[in-house]
Amino acid sequence: MNKPTLLELLARVQAGSVTPEEASARLAALPFEDLDYAKIDHHRSLRSGLPEVIYAAGKSPEQTAAIFGRMAATGIDVLATRADQATAAAVLAAVPASRYHEQARAITLRQSNAAEPLGHVAVVCAGTSDLPAAEEAAITAELFGTRVTRIYDVGVAGIHRLLAQCDLLATANVVIVCAGMEGALPSVVGGIVGVPVIAVPTSVGYGASFAGAAALLGMLNSCSPNVCVVNIDNGFGAAYTATLIARAAAKK
Amino acid sequence: MNKPTLLELLARVQAGSVTPEEASARLAALPFEDLDYAKIDHHRSLRSGLPEVIYAAGKSPEQTAAIFGRMAATGIDVLATRADQATAAAVLAAVPASRYHEQARAITLRQSNAAEPLGHVAVVCAGTSDLPAAEEAAITAELFGTRVTRIYDVGVAGIHRLLAQCDLLATANVVIVCAGMEGALPSVVGGIVGVPVIAVPTSVGYGASFAGAAALLGMLNSCSPNVCVVNIDNGFGAAYTATLIARAAAKK
Amino acid sequence: MNKPTLLELLARVQAGSVTPEEASARLAALPFEDLDYAKIDHHRSLRSGLPEVIYAAGKSPEQTAAIFGRMAATGIDVLATRADQATAAAVLAAVPASRYHEQARAITLRQSNAAEPLGHVAVVCAGTSDLPAAEEAAITAELFGTRVTRIYDVGVAGIHRLLAQCDLLATANVVIVCAGMEGALPSVVGGIVGVPVIAVPTSVGYGASFAGAAALLGMLNSCSPNVCVVNIDNGFGAAYTATLIARAAAKK
Amino acid sequence: MNKPTLLELLARVQAGSVTPEEASARLAALPFEDLDYAKIDHHRSLRSGLPEVIYAAGKSPEQTAAIFGRMAATGIDVLATRADQATAAAVLAAVPASRYHEQARAITLRQSNAAEPLGHVAVVCAGTSDLPAAEEAAITAELFGTRVTRIYDVGVAGIHRLLAQCDLLATANVVIVCAGMEGALPSVVGGIVGVPVIAVPTSVGYGASFAGAAALLGMLNSCSPNVCVVNIDNGFGAAYTATLIARAAAKK
Amino acid sequence: MNKPTLLELLARVQAGSVTPEEASARLAALPFEDLDYAKIDHHRSLRSGLPEVIYAAGKSPEQTAAIFGRMAATGIDVLATRADQATAAAVLAAVPASRYHEQARAITLRQSNAAEPLGHVAVVCAGTSDLPAAEEAAITAELFGTRVTRIYDVGVAGIHRLLAQCDLLATANVVIVCAGMEGALPSVVGGIVGVPVIAVPTSVGYGASFAGAAALLGMLNSCSPNVCVVNIDNGFGAAYTATLIARAAAKK
Amino acid sequence: MNKPTLLELLARVQAGSVTPEEASARLAALPFEDLDYAKIDHHRSLRSGLPEVIYAAGKSPEQTAAIFGRMAATGIDVLATRADQATAAAVLAAVPASRYHEQARAITLRQSNAAEPLGHVAVVCAGTSDLPAAEEAAITAELFGTRVTRIYDVGVAGIHRLLAQCDLLATANVVIVCAGMEGALPSVVGGIVGVPVIAVPTSVGYGASFAGAAALLGMLNSCSPNVCVVNIDNGFGAAYTATLIARAAAKK
Amino acid sequence: MNKPTLLELLARVQAGSVTPEEASARLAALPFEDLDYAKIDHHRSLRSGLPEVIYAAGKSPEQTAAIFGRMAATGIDVLATRADQATAAAVLAAVPASRYHEQARAITLRQSNAAEPLGHVAVVCAGTSDLPAAEEAAITAELFGTRVTRIYDVGVAGIHRLLAQCDLLATANVVIVCAGMEGALPSVVGGIVGVPVIAVPTSVGYGASFAGAAALLGMLNSCSPNVCVVNIDNGFGAAYTATLIARAAAKK
Amino acid sequence: MNKPTLLELLARVQAGSVTPEEASARLAALPFEDLDYAKIDHHRSLRSGLPEVIYAAGKSPEQTAAIFGRMAATGIDVLATRADQATAAAVLAAVPASRYHEQARAITLRQSNAAEPLGHVAVVCAGTSDLPAAEEAAITAELFGTRVTRIYDVGVAGIHRLLAQCDLLATANVVIVCAGMEGALPSVVGGIVGVPVIAVPTSVGYGASFAGAAALLGMLNSCSPNVCVVNIDNGFGAAYTATLIARAAAKK
Repeated sequence: MNKPTLLELLARVQAGSVTPEEASARLAALPFEDLDYAKIDHHRSLRSGLPEVIYAAGKSPEQTAAIFGRMAATGIDVLATRADQATAAAVLAAVPASRYHEQARAITLRQSNAAEPLGHVAVVCAGTSDLPAAEEAAITAELFGTRVTRIYDVGVAGIHRLLAQCDLLATANVVIVCAGMEGALPSVVGGIVGVPVIAVPTSVGYGASFAGAAALLGMLNSCSPNVCVVNIDNGFGAAYTATLIARAAAKK
Repeated sequence: MNKPTLLELLARVQAGSVTPEEASARLAALPFEDLDYAKIDHHRSLRSGLPEVIYAAGKSPEQTAAIFGRMAATGIDVLATRADQATAAAVLAAVPASRYHEQARAITLRQSNAAEPLGHVAVVCAGTSDLPAAEEAAITAELFGTRVTRIYDVGVAGIHRLLAQCDLLATANVVIVCAGMEGALPSVVGGIVGVPVIAVPTSVGYGASFAGAAALLGMLNSCSPNVCVVNIDNGFGAAYTATLIARAAAKK
Repeated sequence: MNKPTLLELLARVQAGSVTPEEASARLAALPFEDLDYAKIDHHRSLRSGLPEVIYAAGKSPEQTAAIFGRMAATGIDVLATRADQATAAAVLAAVPASRYHEQARAITLRQSNAAEPLGHVAVVCAGTSDLPAAEEAAITAELFGTRVTRIYDVGVAGIHRLLAQCDLLATANVVIVCAGMEGALPSVVGGIVGVPVIAVPTSVGYGASFAGAAALLGMLNSCSPNVCVVNIDNGFGAAYTATLIARAAAKK
Repeated sequence: MNKPTLLELLARVQAGSVTPEEASARLAALPFEDLDYAKIDHHRSLRSGLPEVIYAAGKSPEQTAAIFGRMAATGIDVLATRADQATAAAVLAAVPASRYHEQARAITLRQSNAAEPLGHVAVVCAGTSDLPAAEEAAITAELFGTRVTRIYDVGVAGIHRLLAQCDLLATANVVIVCAGMEGALPSVVGGIVGVPVIAVPTSVGYGASFAGAAALLGMLNSCSPNVCVVNIDNGFGAAYTATLIARAAAKK
Repeated sequence: MNKPTLLELLARVQAGSVTPEEASARLAALPFEDLDYAKIDHHRSLRSGLPEVIYAAGKSPEQTAAIFGRMAATGIDVLATRADQATAAAVLAAVPASRYHEQARAITLRQSNAAEPLGHVAVVCAGTSDLPAAEEAAITAELFGTRVTRIYDVGVAGIHRLLAQCDLLATANVVIVCAGMEGALPSVVGGIVGVPVIAVPTSVGYGASFAGAAALLGMLNSCSPNVCVVNIDNGFGAAYTATLIARAAAKK
Repeated sequence: MNKPTLLELLARVQAGSVTPEEASARLAALPFEDLDYAKIDHHRSLRSGLPEVIYAAGKSPEQTAAIFGRMAATGIDVLATRADQATAAAVLAAVPASRYHEQARAITLRQSNAAEPLGHVAVVCAGTSDLPAAEEAAITAELFGTRVTRIYDVGVAGIHRLLAQCDLLATANVVIVCAGMEGALPSVVGGIVGVPVIAVPTSVGYGASFAGAAALLGMLNSCSPNVCVVNIDNGFGAAYTATLIARAAAKK
Repeated sequence: MNKPTLLELLARVQAGSVTPEEASARLAALPFEDLDYAKIDHHRSLRSGLPEVIYAAGKSPEQTAAIFGRMAATGIDVLATRADQATAAAVLAAVPASRYHEQARAITLRQSNAAEPLGHVAVVCAGTSDLPAAEEAAITAELFGTRVTRIYDVGVAGIHRLLAQCDLLATANVVIVCAGMEGALPSVVGGIVGVPVIAVPTSVGYGASFAGAAALLGMLNSCSPNVCVVNIDNGFGAAYTATLIARAAAKK
Repeated sequence: MNKPTLLELLARVQAGSVTPEEASARLAALPFEDLDYAKIDHHRSLRSGLPEVIYAAGKSPEQTAAIFGRMAATGIDVLATRADQATAAAVLAAVPASRYHEQARAITLRQSNAAEPLGHVAVVCAGTSDLPAAEEAAITAELFGTRVTRIYDVGVAGIHRLLAQCDLLATANVVIVCAGMEGALPSVVGGIVGVPVIAVPTSVGYGASFAGAAALLGMLNSCSPNVCVVNIDNGFGAAYTATLIARAAAKK
């Protein structure tokens, strides 16, 4: 029940063609979301400022291309994550204006007039093997309208490489840190910056890395209190939250 | 907003003292549960047929006794689970009509006129060490108004003991099976009976039982398709669901 | 030893052609199942009301087709689960009247005169990735003679989608809920309905989902007491138990 | 080497009393932090806006009281977390102006002139057993100068209780959600609000909750992309990051 | 139904006072074990050659003492395992002829005329911390009537200590090897002897021993093909199986 | 240093051509195995009674065929386990007298004059999916010269199938039980027979079977004290130990 | 900022063309590593004595070949680990002087004048399946300029094979021990030698070896105090540390 | 058989009073260690340079005191680890010259003439909670005759604290790094120094630290190749190996 329908029902009560009892029964039987437009809409309007997102893993190239195409037709920005080469080929054939970011395994379509970026997200990663997660985060945050600074290959085994980037780190509203293996980098970064750090454990490693579980546990136990964690390889989720933080911090 | 309040609002709309727009605004801003009495009430009325339940673990004896007392004062049946001796002493002092079932670690208060039991639950356990979970299930199901048959100490290492109870098992609407260690009993029972089996892994065992995890995994992998599982030592939850099944099956 | 054989033996004892000692020896040496026809038969007759089931995973297409064919020849209903495309092709070639349900990975053959469905099972799932488990459950329950209502794509991140289905949920005798990732949906559904909920964790997810283990643990720890759990992706088992519950509740 | 010392050294170079070679040698041998005041100081000045924090677990009451006393003597705000009754007694004896928050297991001392709170953090928890973590978060955020709204006992098994708080939730800059057992609440909250959600798994539960691991895994696999996670029972860490987010979002 | 009862029933059939139909009904309704004396008795007669065993863990001293007393009264040998000091005191008070083996945590009562030991079991352990499991095994095997040779403190870090015992090891029919920490000893012993080795992982160790899980895994992966494994600290089970092996090998 | 060499050295001492000091130095420097022929030889002579065994997994078909060929050339019996089709083809081409057992994934070559089998091993399995492990055990035990009785497809969900085989089971010297999923069968068999049971968990199952870990844990926690366990799918190891037990029990 | 640059800056201060304040500002803003040449250079100069290393896993053959070529062009020694056949082909095509070690999965290029090896590393492994890790260690240590003694196929199930090598082991400065399955070998070796043992768990095994986790846990729990452990299959890391130990011990 | 005994035997052979055959038989039957004095003695002589060590955990104060006293009576240095207050009291009463190091939970007795320390071990720890492991390492290394430099409280969340100690670190022959929580410190230290790093995970932390498992996994996955790892909290083992490394590196 949208607002006009509700008003019409209440108008009928006012007009006497529907009794209060009848109206009460109909209202009680309505699905929640129909009534709750006020609350839900606040949320949706917020989200509508962000592109629609398709999780391509587990979908066939055709399925992803079809969904992508339908979304694109509405004129909004679109993002597909975890898209392999075949999926990219299908989507680009269907929506030539879209663009494939191979390392990020992401397809983007920008149709909105790109406003000035709002907020600043630094994306840090430990090694070149962490690039898929890092680039997924960076591409996502950029499409969501935030400025992104990439600081890559600054693993803790050569700590001076990271320290050389302190000034750059100091300008971000939030830092995303992607690391596999021992997952130590977010703690070090968290000690250097004064903003929230979103840690992304990656599945980089072998043996006792247990496909990212070691990095995940390390990050959850960070001794830096400004570190919080998302799922293994979840660059998209890190960027989603980081965008919310950075845009809120940057807006006046 | 309860029903009278809603009717009054609608009556004011009918009377013209509140406009449809004003009513729409008030309705949209209401907490969900106030409006949705119809759906929730269906649920609650169902549940109101069952006693109120207090999970005493992690509450002080005084807290449990106070909550138990307030509930008792409303005249309904009350159940407290995971209650130790000290808690029992506190509750019985506060509500002398209540009763402590030591092995089940449960305190019950029956204030309703006990109707004829509806439905039949068999509670089976492998060994005497499984009795706390089994008795928690049995006491719960009895208080919930179901007939309970206890078939205890029929572990799979002496399979003839279980087979001797086949006739008895065949009369139940649902069977609760509590077992620790290897957790094999539900599969065997599931192969014998033609009704749902609710498996309760218990924390009985040592070493590689990992506090019930071995039994839990065994039950989840049961080769009998009529077996489903609840949390380790969760006799209460098993009885709750079993009661729903047995009563529905037995009612005409 | 079936009943006639036993009677014949006893008649010979009566007639004196077999001594009690000889009869005792023969009786003691008999396999259990031969004697226990009364108990086992009760079970079998119950089960014979349900189709025969073939678990096709780990069998070659030829093996599955051969077994399916032999069963079909007896005139009963047949179900094969976890059947891939190649298996489906082999079975359909062997038994043209059978039907492949691709998403459910199931092959069904209905040969009985379909009675009016007895009982009502709602199958709920969180996202489109959970469809294989959900459809396996739905197809199974339907073949077993129960009415099935599908409520799909109502994950907890958009809770209003689920709430909009409350009325529909309220009419089921039992609800099957399939969810991967965090596995939160059964708890929410369990709080809304007043009937048993059978939770099916699915292997949907990545990273810390550990192939469904996260969802499994979540469901086992449900704070709704009417939730019980089956193995990861075990839509068939959930439907088997749900059918037993729904038919018992619906029969008069 | 602080700034004046560095300037003095350089002045001596300018004056000719120290050669460039000698200065080079001294500079190269200095500890990093002495030179890097610019970068580190930015960070420290940010953090100096927040109270000093003592993690009391594993320290004796006397040790905690001594550290607390030394910090208090400097005139700043002080927070001690994971403090039991004995520790509280020792600290309050040493610093009578401090205050013990029993449920939060926290001791606070406010000595700064409390400015108007900046930013708004909502702290949500599923059940009363989650209160220690929730209160630790709330007390921390309040001492850090943020407005805190507590929304307690809104677990997913009674989803209407949460939905009734949607308007309140909508006013926060960030939401902290504490939940044990299945850890489902952050996903539901994440779907309702448009701001970051920091999920705190709690060790509430038994059996297959594995001391909070089930809730932790559930939250890491949240299907709401605005959820990130901290360690089990880490209310302090959640509040630390939430304060950073809320204050940045609220400042003009 | 024991054998005389069955014969009496069949005699009545022979005599005509019970019809075959009546006898058939009674036979079908009998518990399995009553009829199946032949098979079960074979088993029982075997087991009756061994003492009755009480698992004292989780039983109160009074309960254990009462069960022990009842068994003792029948004149058979009795064994109680996992008995602490308090339990031992209660049992010895009730049955003065019993004896407490503190290191083994076992109470034994020998009432049978001790025959010449049959078979030879070597019990090997890695360090003094493994003695509780090793002694439980040794005491059990001795009470069960087997000769036991103890070879203790021969851990793999000083391999010459073990090698010095090769001749002694070579005389056993089966070897029980108890070891914690890395659990390497069974593999080495398995390579030296030509008889079955039963490995008992012990909970000795700390940190990454995970209460015996490391030793358990090590033993399960033994590269010696004559090694099989029992539960952590399960000296009793190892001795039970070892006794069966040794006695069968030694009897003529 | 073999015996003749040692004797020669000692003879030289006796003859005075080597001093005791020189002999002492040479003896101390010798590798252990050279001197210890007595102990090691006992072992080897025992093992030499059994065929040589090749673990083909991780070897190329050519490597396995080459090793098999060299062993075959010495005239002894040979066994290759975990051999796939390609390996079998290579071995049969190299050693035409060898034979491939596809289900067991084993290649055997018998060249010894087959003596009368000594001892009797029963191999029991729960379902047809357990056949690879069960057949590996059976083929191994047969080649090792033991009589094997196969009792297949007697899972606990249809317990009467197993009970019908009690007489057959009662004649074995040792029972190997292979089962996946919940791994319950060894406990039931252990309760029926009076001989050792060697449990082989299989990797049969899905989801929470965790590739055999659930069955493994179940078997380690067996409530039947005559059960011991080998690694997942390790039919060969079970047969190796079972053969040792059965032959020792059967020899006179 | 390298040393000349710093001296130039300071010279300008001395000359008065840069004020101390300006110099202070520039120094504070420099990346750490530029200033800290003294400390870092010590480290780098040490490392520059060792070849550059490329971890080829996760890189395409072309990428590895390109990196390898660039490094080779500088005239230093180069090592690529985890290189498959395709990668080897690409590298050898690009740098014909390089050499592929198939079992070690390593590509080496020696361009330095090979000095006399310094230090002595023994590489021990349990079985032929452990050769990839063992050879990776051996090839690495050799390229790093250390003498390597290979002692292979001396698993603990035939302990005499290892004992025969005691003299050889006694001459090493450090021992690397590679073992899968139960991982028992390092403890035995650690008890025999008086030098550090670096244990490399390998992923050799199946079932409960859990891809090397069993061996890893065993080694971490070693009862020999001179054993330390690296990641599963990490022969390279073991050799890196072993080289540091052996060269330091051997240098005069 | 010690050397004199062997010589005497050989002398008898020389003298003709024992035949070569008799001597051969006696030699073959001797325990290995008796003969192998040459090899073992090399090892023992190395170890005899180090104090005897008692692992006090799991021993009663009286047992530890008795063993300590017997060792002390021989005039050598003695070390007892994991000793609580009660054990310390018992030992100091028995051996007044011994000394208790409370934080290290270690008791030491130095009776040898302390030579100049040989080699230099740096012991680094992340926080004050890691002190028990760090001090156990430091006290052990000191008693073993090595110089120890303590660098404490330099966790990665304040990386400048560690960097300030680079010069000090650069002088050590080997570095022991103790850290709990995320266990990131060894990787950072490993990148700074050019000597072996022995990482000691500590059980410091809560929740997802899983009693040190998170730190252990982090360290095993270190991206610094000069890091190897010992068991959780195993400061003693780290110091044992570190001493071997440092002394070998420092000796001329």
